[in-house]
Amino acid sequence: MKYAFAKRVRHLHSSAVRDILKVVNQQGVISFAGGLPDDELFPLEAMEDAFSRVFATGKKSMQYSETEGFLPLRELILERMGRKGIRSYSERNVLITTGSQQAIDLFSRVMFNPGDVVLTEDPTYLAALQVFESYEAEIVPVASDDEGMIPEDLEQKMKQHKPKCVYVVPTFSNPAGRVWSLERRKHLLNMAHKHHVLIFEDDPYGDIQFNQEETYVPLAAMDTGSHVLYTSTFSKTAVPALRTGWITGPFQVVRMMAQAKQANDLHSNSLSQQALYQLFTHHDMDGHIQRLIEVYRSRKDVMIKTLQGADIPGLRFVEPKGGMFLWAELDEAINTSLLIKEAVAKGMAYVPGEPFYAGVPKYNTLRLNFTHSTPEKIEKGIGIFADVVHKEMESVAMYT
Amino acid sequence: MKYAFAKRVRHLHSSAVRDILKVVNQQGVISFAGGLPDDELFPLEAMEDAFSRVFATGKKSMQYSETEGFLPLRELILERMGRKGIRSYSERNVLITTGSQQAIDLFSRVMFNPGDVVLTEDPTYLAALQVFESYEAEIVPVASDDEGMIPEDLEQKMKQHKPKCVYVVPTFSNPAGRVWSLERRKHLLNMAHKHHVLIFEDDPYGDIQFNQEETYVPLAAMDTGSHVLYTSTFSKTAVPALRTGWITGPFQVVRMMAQAKQANDLHSNSLSQQALYQLFTHHDMDGHIQRLIEVYRSRKDVMIKTLQGADIPGLRFVEPKGGMFLWAELDEAINTSLLIKEAVAKGMAYVPGEPFYAGVPKYNTLRLNFTHSTPEKIEKGIGIFADVVHKEMESVAMYT
Repeated sequence: MKYAFAKRVRHLHSSAVRDILKVVNQQGVISFAGGLPDDELFPLEAMEDAFSRVFATGKKSMQYSETEGFLPLRELILERMGRKGIRSYSERNVLITTGSQQAIDLFSRVMFNPGDVVLTEDPTYLAALQVFESYEAEIVPVASDDEGMIPEDLEQKMKQHKPKCVYVVPTFSNPAGRVWSLERRKHLLNMAHKHHVLIFEDDPYGDIQFNQEETYVPLAAMDTGSHVLYTSTFSKTAVPALRTGWITGPFQVVRMMAQAKQANDLHSNSLSQQALYQLFTHHDMDGHIQRLIEVYRSRKDVMIKTLQGADIPGLRFVEPKGGMFLWAELDEAINTSLLIKEAVAKGMAYVPGEPFYAGVPKYNTLRLNFTHSTPEKIEKGIGIFADVVHKEMESVAMYT
Repeated sequence: MKYAFAKRVRHLHSSAVRDILKVVNQQGVISFAGGLPDDELFPLEAMEDAFSRVFATGKKSMQYSETEGFLPLRELILERMGRKGIRSYSERNVLITTGSQQAIDLFSRVMFNPGDVVLTEDPTYLAALQVFESYEAEIVPVASDDEGMIPEDLEQKMKQHKPKCVYVVPTFSNPAGRVWSLERRKHLLNMAHKHHVLIFEDDPYGDIQFNQEETYVPLAAMDTGSHVLYTSTFSKTAVPALRTGWITGPFQVVRMMAQAKQANDLHSNSLSQQALYQLFTHHDMDGHIQRLIEVYRSRKDVMIKTLQGADIPGLRFVEPKGGMFLWAELDEAINTSLLIKEAVAKGMAYVPGEPFYAGVPKYNTLRLNFTHSTPEKIEKGIGIFADVVHKEMESVAMYT
């Protein structure tokens, strides 16, 4: 039988990252491709204790529950967001989602008609682009540098495209590892207020901050309470397998998303929501996050040192101040999308930069994850990478 | 700020069932409204053991995993579906979803353009109607009786509307508690083959069968392998809180749904998938399901006996052969949508029949759940219900 799919599936394609991950898992290569935390650092004993505490509350813990999510967890989220300065919300502004990916998806579902414009950084989070495309939104990239979106281009595109939303990852962006300056944050907020445009602030990595002296104020903390949707997740601070994230923002929007969630999956896994509440209540998760930061910072340092020592042609990067990724540019003769096959064959993997671009891609870019590999593997993997790039440059030189 | 939502949210509204449930939970009334299993029957110790076994496998159990789902669980699902005669699939035809609700949603997402027609029974599963509406599909109800869709009306509507899909709950339907006859099942399959139409077979209740001598063959077991999508869930046989269901069917469709799932939530909670695998592998879940059946059957018997003894005006119903619901009609003077407020005020709740209809509703119908209340509560709740109906009939008589 021939299947007549909906038009919107034109834009559905398997994520490049996940396809690479599949190959990588099979072959046992050193992978800097995924956005994986290190499973050796997962709080196994604490998590097992947290689940025991949930089971001790009785059988009702396993029943159907409310779409909005487990109330004590939503209160805990409010308390933790409050520490970042996000204080204008109550529990009814918090919706628990199946990872922050579902938050992006539900927001898009209630917001975008085909042809509606969303402005994004360039490059930006791959899987957000895929969601926007799947709802047939028009993605317009805004020229971005190391401090965020460039004000002139943002203003021009706000006027020209009358977007419905601006999607940003202002703190330790994926893939570019950027931190927006306070000025750029304020400028975006002003623009959003002036043009009546929503901001979707995606902050999965905000807790993984390497330099604790600096302060990065979330857009949601500076908003008057009506223009910013803010999403984050427990995937990076606790564990990914529980698929628990949240979104907060204006009640009208969050309530509409909750109704979309009813149709989508009724509610997210509630045993896990209860376990996360127990985990953060009975265990020193702030201490745990501090240990994650220390390990990830030292791995970032090893990766940078190894990259710097490897004399890779044209290599440029900005040192990440947090998060999980290092974004690099190579000599313009290198196409990382073509090079990946050879890299995997030689025993290492990265994600080519191309799929992260909504606009014209820079083919000489790539994303390297530094959280999922030991220092030894980082040194070895970057060594392989350097060899592959050098060989490619020789081959390029032969034909030019 | 005024929020400009997408057009598709016109069709989003909070589920009538869930809104009633919220009130009910607050007030402690006897509720036959939800589709809740009895939490007293949840396998708490076995579940705790299952999670311990997962934790014992190590920290990798808590890492990100594949969109398609935990492979051993997909194999277990294949084995269990094989017992029902569904044998034409391999693991690649199985996608784990966040409850079977997400299976309906992902299917609709990859399948329906606005205006595409889906044929349904009438009445049918409320939350499926809401999903179809949210993708702007046109729902065309097919006249149905106690044996399924009426062949003449099905044939006529197949020809007239050229549907993309027929959505059915052929075994212990929600809300009507129907079981389709073998002839009607075969007829639907023939129609689907003839007109090149997909069948979406929703089977959440198939394992809760009261009369073990009868055999109800799933449509998926009789399909040649290309026209039927089949979904089910662990929510009724194990516990709902884990939100784990699955869909199986033609690879092309399942693969497209997996790609939509990547955008929707990356993957479902994988710790729970592993726990369900351990639960079904190391515990006698068939024995557990048998105990559920015995308890639920005896509660169904109590509800029927109480209803029959209460002399409720115009009461008609078909005895359920399985599942969780009894569907009843009352005197035509009664509007159950109007009566619900009084019923809740007096201490009992049901779901009015109206929202289950895609076509012209019968306002004198209602759905009663018999699995979530003890026999004592069933007797008391039905007693309250009978009083409320009698009082309403008196009031009707006064004004006519």
